[in-house]
Amino acid sequence: MRKTSPLIAAMAILVALPAVAQDAAATGAAPAVSADVAYIFNTLLFLIGGFLVMWMAAGFAMLEAGLVRSRNVTTQLFKNVSLFAIAGLMYWLIGYNLMYPGDDGWTVPGVIGQIFSPKAIDPVAAGDASAGYSAGSDFFFQLMFCATTASIVSGTLAERVKLWPFMIFTVLLTGVIYPIEASWEWGTGFLDQMGFSDFAGSTLVHATGGFAALAGAIILGPRSGKYRADGRMQPMPGSNLALATLGTFILWLGWFGFNGASQLAIGSVNDAADVSRIFVNTNMAASAGAIAAIGVTQALYGKIDLTMVLNGALAGLVAITAEPLFPSIFGSILIGAVGGAIAVLVVPMLDRFRIDDVVGAIPVHLVAGIWGTLVVPASNPDASYITQLVGVAAIGAFTFVLSFVIWTVLKATMGIRVDEEAEISGLDISEMGMEAYPDFVQAK
Amino acid sequence: MRKTSPLIAAMAILVALPAVAQDAAATGAAPAVSADVAYIFNTLLFLIGGFLVMWMAAGFAMLEAGLVRSRNVTTQLFKNVSLFAIAGLMYWLIGYNLMYPGDDGWTVPGVIGQIFSPKAIDPVAAGDASAGYSAGSDFFFQLMFCATTASIVSGTLAERVKLWPFMIFTVLLTGVIYPIEASWEWGTGFLDQMGFSDFAGSTLVHATGGFAALAGAIILGPRSGKYRADGRMQPMPGSNLALATLGTFILWLGWFGFNGASQLAIGSVNDAADVSRIFVNTNMAASAGAIAAIGVTQALYGKIDLTMVLNGALAGLVAITAEPLFPSIFGSILIGAVGGAIAVLVVPMLDRFRIDDVVGAIPVHLVAGIWGTLVVPASNPDASYITQLVGVAAIGAFTFVLSFVIWTVLKATMGIRVDEEAEISGLDISEMGMEAYPDFVQAK
Amino acid sequence: MRKTSPLIAAMAILVALPAVAQDAAATGAAPAVSADVAYIFNTLLFLIGGFLVMWMAAGFAMLEAGLVRSRNVTTQLFKNVSLFAIAGLMYWLIGYNLMYPGDDGWTVPGVIGQIFSPKAIDPVAAGDASAGYSAGSDFFFQLMFCATTASIVSGTLAERVKLWPFMIFTVLLTGVIYPIEASWEWGTGFLDQMGFSDFAGSTLVHATGGFAALAGAIILGPRSGKYRADGRMQPMPGSNLALATLGTFILWLGWFGFNGASQLAIGSVNDAADVSRIFVNTNMAASAGAIAAIGVTQALYGKIDLTMVLNGALAGLVAITAEPLFPSIFGSILIGAVGGAIAVLVVPMLDRFRIDDVVGAIPVHLVAGIWGTLVVPASNPDASYITQLVGVAAIGAFTFVLSFVIWTVLKATMGIRVDEEAEISGLDISEMGMEAYPDFVQAK
Repeated sequence: MRKTSPLIAAMAILVALPAVAQDAAATGAAPAVSADVAYIFNTLLFLIGGFLVMWMAAGFAMLEAGLVRSRNVTTQLFKNVSLFAIAGLMYWLIGYNLMYPGDDGWTVPGVIGQIFSPKAIDPVAAGDASAGYSAGSDFFFQLMFCATTASIVSGTLAERVKLWPFMIFTVLLTGVIYPIEASWEWGTGFLDQMGFSDFAGSTLVHATGGFAALAGAIILGPRSGKYRADGRMQPMPGSNLALATLGTFILWLGWFGFNGASQLAIGSVNDAADVSRIFVNTNMAASAGAIAAIGVTQALYGKIDLTMVLNGALAGLVAITAEPLFPSIFGSILIGAVGGAIAVLVVPMLDRFRIDDVVGAIPVHLVAGIWGTLVVPASNPDASYITQLVGVAAIGAFTFVLSFVIWTVLKATMGIRVDEEAEISGLDISEMGMEAYPDFVQAK
Repeated sequence: MRKTSPLIAAMAILVALPAVAQDAAATGAAPAVSADVAYIFNTLLFLIGGFLVMWMAAGFAMLEAGLVRSRNVTTQLFKNVSLFAIAGLMYWLIGYNLMYPGDDGWTVPGVIGQIFSPKAIDPVAAGDASAGYSAGSDFFFQLMFCATTASIVSGTLAERVKLWPFMIFTVLLTGVIYPIEASWEWGTGFLDQMGFSDFAGSTLVHATGGFAALAGAIILGPRSGKYRADGRMQPMPGSNLALATLGTFILWLGWFGFNGASQLAIGSVNDAADVSRIFVNTNMAASAGAIAAIGVTQALYGKIDLTMVLNGALAGLVAITAEPLFPSIFGSILIGAVGGAIAVLVVPMLDRFRIDDVVGAIPVHLVAGIWGTLVVPASNPDASYITQLVGVAAIGAFTFVLSFVIWTVLKATMGIRVDEEAEISGLDISEMGMEAYPDFVQAK
Repeated sequence: MRKTSPLIAAMAILVALPAVAQDAAATGAAPAVSADVAYIFNTLLFLIGGFLVMWMAAGFAMLEAGLVRSRNVTTQLFKNVSLFAIAGLMYWLIGYNLMYPGDDGWTVPGVIGQIFSPKAIDPVAAGDASAGYSAGSDFFFQLMFCATTASIVSGTLAERVKLWPFMIFTVLLTGVIYPIEASWEWGTGFLDQMGFSDFAGSTLVHATGGFAALAGAIILGPRSGKYRADGRMQPMPGSNLALATLGTFILWLGWFGFNGASQLAIGSVNDAADVSRIFVNTNMAASAGAIAAIGVTQALYGKIDLTMVLNGALAGLVAITAEPLFPSIFGSILIGAVGGAIAVLVVPMLDRFRIDDVVGAIPVHLVAGIWGTLVVPASNPDASYITQLVGVAAIGAFTFVLSFVIWTVLKATMGIRVDEEAEISGLDISEMGMEAYPDFVQAK
């Protein structure tokens, strides 16, 4: 580990004020809760956290349906429903096994959990208090993280990707890519052994979704007419900002489950206090992300941009996800605010490279996710900047390269893009044959 | 009980893989949780489950508002709000008593709980650890099931039923019909004594709502212009598929409470494991229902139909509701997939009989509900196919006949249908005098 | 305390039937739950209650976005997101300290908690079972109440208030006004010492938001064209009743957390039973409020008005908030029904004074909140009508006067109202430069 600069040291003090108190908590009183009661509490945490994260699928659906043009809404809604259904089946079929090493399947130690395990046909075992929580509640909670990763991709590629290749990619992302890279950390793989730290998935979930989306966006190309010959951009505003705002609130709510239940336990006083701190820090980072986006858009453009503010809040949430427990409240505000600023500032950079990200998922989930992961050592004394960088690079390389290959193969075989006429008339007609708002007269 | 055929036996093996493990759980360790702590856990389960099922009322409202034409949206929204309010009052006033036998009211053993009980004016007693859970949390949870039954009816009859007769029917459905038939099973009535098995209400709630809707749809007749003279159907597409999708996600979320809290206990390790398995199975059935509907609509119509996919997910949920605990994950997928296929395949059958079900509630809640109920013995060794059939028939006959009579009387007295002019201009103008989207120019 | 009239005494009997049972509960069995387990239960109650109340922010956003005209939707959405973010930061920065007295900051006993406390930079301490619940979960829950207060204001002032003055007012409301008046009761201040009773904030939250909104509405003046020269009113119907209904259901759901978790404990059998009763009573009051609004609008106007029914349900919820534990179910229905009737009847009174409240927040939150607070003694034997009146008057005077001064200063300095041209073309263009529904052709 390199010596940290004075600047980083000073920042760490601000970010991680309560380190002492936290340590006190960690070494606190002996457990006074029976194993059975702790088991029920922990299971309840997974179930509540799980249904909150499941609800995020609706949040992504509403956010994306609100940010695409009305002619592509049905398609976007369908993709969000189908990816969630696909994730459920694929994660059960192979993903869960790939993620966690067992004792009866073929395995690549530290890299792949297990390829096949007879037990794994039904991983939801009967109750056993010594396990600490029910296997079913864990499976349910973990599945929702897999689904979230897929949700991130659909927004970036909106308004021009074909349905079936998108679904095939989702099958591979939820069945193979996510489970393998997640096993590196959460399946006690090599990143976990190196000391990589990603509490609830700034990189494992959000940047992973973002890398997959980035690969897709590069191969797919921008929407027709988005980048004009004169070098200017054609605005393609979202068709329903009420839905986009609703989606953001849903995601904000769901994130309490996402981060809070990633404590993995609430069966002791210290765990309950830690889950509470995570709730507070998560909310603070989101608030700060929104406020930062207000400030940056007002400063840069002279007007506040609602969609940027929504993305700012989400970027704050993504940023705090890698370490929502150790930072002080003030630290969480800093982490979230930088995330929110990133969400605004990265957009023009992507446009410079003509990477057309319809909903801003790359700034929000990829870039703010990397930011959150890299800043973990500022508050968590067990993390190192180098290891964080290695973790992001390893997961990024794996996800980006594999996604790139898959999208390339899909493009070469079945094609991944609707033809230009279909794109202009909208995917709802060409791909689905069904308008989202048929009773309303649409502007040209 | 008849001997099961080899086909059914083979299916049962696939559907109920973990039967041994489940039995182990059922006969597992002695309880190590104090009665007080178990009481609090169980109460918490009812409260969380109850608020999730309450949220389903919003899901039905959004689903139906999205699937009707824009000129009927205000009316549909109003019906969903008012039926939920009516259910609350009626279930308290008489329904809860009719459902559960007590010791101080007039009763028909096995058929009607009690007609009137002085205690029942306020069934929410003070805490008593020996009860296992608080009376208030049970009342709250049960009330939400009563309200769900009413929610199912409103969608089918949309776009032509008059407001007041609908509300009167809701009064009778929530105050009398639902409580009586539900008492047959959940109030320890004759079906319960026969061994009928309906864990969370595939028949008691969903098919009951569906039977009531079917009776109403027959008497009410189809929407004007729906079935044309040339034998073809006039498409009347839903006005807002974003809302319909939101409603589906809300229902999906709420269903974890619907099925999960129907375990009625989470105060032991085994109960916590069982609730977890129910969450997993419920999600798997929904996912499989959606995927099945994708496959079937693509195969039949050459295009994926979003509203069918939404209904497929819901039908998967309805189907698993009768027995979400015993099936293996694979079994849950099968049960849900068949439910999803039913949701698609039954629609043209209804149309052949000119039964106009605006939102598809009959395929989803009635037919998939019957499917789910009949398939219970494939995984639950305590259930029998004959008894399941008897239960469905008894509840179906009671609900359908009584609903038929009520709708007939309402038709003969006050009329149940708006006049054709009002129907064409939309119920929002004729019944409510208030448009849902007044600022938007509507297509003709 | 004055002698109560026979009428009030009779009403009290109806309203508070289960007083004996309740007392029995209060003096029930000795606690059989360990301090650690109770700590976890209580913390869980705050976290669940907190995320439900957080969700109410989305409810207000949808309700208000649905009730304003389409040209002001983006602005209304933005205000709801930004006020929630602002509340998070301000409540942490100074609000939480102002609300609760500590031992190391400057204080005004009974009036202001503490002005500054070094500890308060991060009020989320490590776990300590003797505290009864985690500090973080309490902070999280309390923060959400502060945010709710701000949400109430934005609806009333919609469609003409400038963005930045609104945000500045929100900073002062969430950082100063709410925390100080709330400290009078919940920070063991002088109203608490007097015996004032406001269980979950009919006055502390809802009437406070309403008073702040009223002061703003008076200074801001009505929307241009609302009150015509001929003495009649120009209807300005909400643009999206589906969103308004969704918002109402969200608020209804969130209210279970709002009232239920205000029990502050669920770590004993009696507390669990009390939380359950609160859930039931809360739902009954909402149902009764909706039904009352149906009856009153049908009687007065010959048609049912959906927005009035939504407000009726909300007013029922506001009314029961001051005392959701002591009333019988029947009492809760009465309290909620009167609240619902108020929501309808107060609207024309406000119009007589040309107070233009776009979403009806003043009838719902202010007037029904006062009603709920004043009726507390009918069911709660520890409360007195005089003290309730004093509490409402003190909080009302403080909030109204301070808000009036702030709005006046803002008006004199930066101006609080957009110019008439901007108002007519809509704030989305003038204030945000971004339409909410750009793809849809808008009616003139």
